[in-house]
Amino acid sequence: MDGLIDSIEYLMQKRDYVRLRQLIEGENEADLAAVFDELFDRYGGEKRDTLVVLFRLLPKDMAAETFSLMNSEMQEELIGTFSDKELREILDELYIDDTVDMIEELPANVVARILKNSTTGERKAINEILRYPRDSAGSIMTIEYVSLHKDMTVSEAFEKIRKVGVNKETIYTCYVTENRRLIGVVTVKGLFMAEEDARIFDVMETNLICVDTHEDKEVVANMFAKYDFLALPVVDKDMRLVGIVTFDDAMEVIQEENTEDVRKMAAIAPSEETYFRTGVFKHARNRVLWLLIFMISAFITQRLLTHYENILLAVPTLVPLMPMITDTGGNCGSQSSTMIIRGLALSEIRFSDFFKLVFKEFRIAIMVSSVLAVVAGIMTYFLCDRDILTAVVIVAAIICTVIMAKLIGAALPMLAKRVGLDPALMASPLITTIVDCCSIFIYFNIAAYVFNL
Amino acid sequence: MDGLIDSIEYLMQKRDYVRLRQLIEGENEADLAAVFDELFDRYGGEKRDTLVVLFRLLPKDMAAETFSLMNSEMQEELIGTFSDKELREILDELYIDDTVDMIEELPANVVARILKNSTTGERKAINEILRYPRDSAGSIMTIEYVSLHKDMTVSEAFEKIRKVGVNKETIYTCYVTENRRLIGVVTVKGLFMAEEDARIFDVMETNLICVDTHEDKEVVANMFAKYDFLALPVVDKDMRLVGIVTFDDAMEVIQEENTEDVRKMAAIAPSEETYFRTGVFKHARNRVLWLLIFMISAFITQRLLTHYENILLAVPTLVPLMPMITDTGGNCGSQSSTMIIRGLALSEIRFSDFFKLVFKEFRIAIMVSSVLAVVAGIMTYFLCDRDILTAVVIVAAIICTVIMAKLIGAALPMLAKRVGLDPALMASPLITTIVDCCSIFIYFNIAAYVFNL
Repeated sequence: MDGLIDSIEYLMQKRDYVRLRQLIEGENEADLAAVFDELFDRYGGEKRDTLVVLFRLLPKDMAAETFSLMNSEMQEELIGTFSDKELREILDELYIDDTVDMIEELPANVVARILKNSTTGERKAINEILRYPRDSAGSIMTIEYVSLHKDMTVSEAFEKIRKVGVNKETIYTCYVTENRRLIGVVTVKGLFMAEEDARIFDVMETNLICVDTHEDKEVVANMFAKYDFLALPVVDKDMRLVGIVTFDDAMEVIQEENTEDVRKMAAIAPSEETYFRTGVFKHARNRVLWLLIFMISAFITQRLLTHYENILLAVPTLVPLMPMITDTGGNCGSQSSTMIIRGLALSEIRFSDFFKLVFKEFRIAIMVSSVLAVVAGIMTYFLCDRDILTAVVIVAAIICTVIMAKLIGAALPMLAKRVGLDPALMASPLITTIVDCCSIFIYFNIAAYVFNL
Repeated sequence: MDGLIDSIEYLMQKRDYVRLRQLIEGENEADLAAVFDELFDRYGGEKRDTLVVLFRLLPKDMAAETFSLMNSEMQEELIGTFSDKELREILDELYIDDTVDMIEELPANVVARILKNSTTGERKAINEILRYPRDSAGSIMTIEYVSLHKDMTVSEAFEKIRKVGVNKETIYTCYVTENRRLIGVVTVKGLFMAEEDARIFDVMETNLICVDTHEDKEVVANMFAKYDFLALPVVDKDMRLVGIVTFDDAMEVIQEENTEDVRKMAAIAPSEETYFRTGVFKHARNRVLWLLIFMISAFITQRLLTHYENILLAVPTLVPLMPMITDTGGNCGSQSSTMIIRGLALSEIRFSDFFKLVFKEFRIAIMVSSVLAVVAGIMTYFLCDRDILTAVVIVAAIICTVIMAKLIGAALPMLAKRVGLDPALMASPLITTIVDCCSIFIYFNIAAYVFNL
């Protein structure tokens, strides 16, 4: 991509618009949109006008798609330079779901201009999609699908696809409706394999897999991964077809949800922007809240340790070993919670597996802790002046801490799921904080017992 | 799905095979495969024979697809009961890439039987795909695509698609080849929009986006997310078309890679199995190695703390505050590394951004640490008998620790990427271990200075 940017910049500087046009005509729209975004970030103020020139060099049939794939700041810049007629032409070419995506990101005055330049039908469709909750199937669907009548023949169906297909987001799955209710699905492949004069009613698939308008978009995306569909119909509660979700939107949702989960697991507030498109202040704000909560919680550990002051002073060798105990506990707990958070996200684990899962983690903990305890015991013995009592404390503390950590790491995400919280919150930082406190409690109680304090 | 399992079990017990067949005929193959897997896990020994009965009730056209979606244990069980003829029938229906997936999981004797019952052509194709490296585009591609000749007319192309389409994994993107070299791509939608007597050469897209057989499959999957393609052609270094990767395989790769990254970030060795399909011993083995490494590294912290023993004894209030400092540092570092690991995985961040990124993290750290330091200082003051010196130590230690942690968290994944290691390894557990050691160093040096020790 760097090569493409360099070539474009070179030809722009030379004002060689003929060769520039030849160059960009041969590129893919997604790559061009990435070039626009990159140059928009690099250029400031005046120089951004050259991007408007570049955009106007795009052939008509490529302009709209390139436009739909840009970041909203770049889109806003371009819209500011469009005449109403040009804006209408672009909007005409866009799929409704892309228009809605764009509207959600743009400032109000630009949105007003877009709505003013849409047709009444488009405006109605846009408003309808905008009405659905943010994370629902309705919010990511498009209304541009091909619908067929059950009494059509296969060749009539082909005729219709040919006529209306150019504006549809996918033509490969067509929907058979009767009084707006979805009664069947037929793929173009199915139509190819059927006789020309067969009736749609006889070739359509009636075992329908569809989603409700209010279904969580993550659930919808996971259905794509399971069924390998190109598109899924979205229906209201009376089985009326209101739109379709296509596989490219599902793929985007999967990537977004994964990013969100990974960030949540590191105690970062969710945000849809990429790293560099988020400002320093926003980054700080997204991170500081959870840090504060965990830091303040750590003062509980401080109170606990103050309580054990006499043990700390009596056996000073115990303190340097404390981070080893708490870190090992934290890592063990995080491993378990990560396995389970991911399993829950992929629906491989359900709440009904609770006891089976906790018991499994318990057995894993026994194995893992035995290995760790032996190594830690031997190392402690040799590093702490061959003090057998300290080594005994460490062996016992490691075993108890690992078991405790794995059980907490297993139970918390499951319980979060049960009460409707996002299990991803029960990840490393929270587990570490809780496990720290518990492992120090275990450690010093074992020490008090062994050293008879 | 539980409802479907219950209904199937009920009808199996009643031996009502007529209604059982009616029931499963109306279901989707992916759901049925999930039922087989679930019942296989629930049933032991003898009772698994009933699953063979259930499988034989499936209509021929559903059997192969259901079979291809099952876990390998269930497949192995079924293959054991197939006659050679039945096995051949199933293999005939399977797409080559699904057969390869299956072969990779099955034991050698079963693989031998499969190869024996494949045609020479299939065997050749299977062996070819198996020869590609495990994570390459070649290993996930299929060879069942539709190829067209540039001199065909659109209606001749339709004729060919109709004739060969039934066995192709996708017919919606067709590939134009000349002497096996890829010269163009045409979609069925494009064919619909063209005149019937237009020549393929005039309607095909020649701006080709394709991947090399040895390209990393994760890169290939990310290309699907970027370009919204249904399929991507896989070519050798002479641009000869050797196969295609379809979007469903890309989606699977994305989910697998995300799972692998999340596990790696929690210091768990990668494994492709789900949680419950992995045995206790294997779970323990996947987790214990990294735990051992981090635990042994924590003894460096132990040595460091032993070195500060005189400070510990002189100012005993410092010890209970230690976990608060180290945990806050660990959490800050993990936040940064997580943001960057994910950004690298999605190609939003590149190594060339190194200094820009480190400077950004530095500014974020200044903001975050100011807030944390104020709160920690005030809490320490009131919780530690209004000791202003201890509070000063905490404020300074928090600021230095947070900045240090965020810089380490930012730099390590970038450097890992640079030297060809997986950045996901530079996540929470490793960052915590390193940050622990550094923050204790910072903490006690500040304390020594403030308390004049």
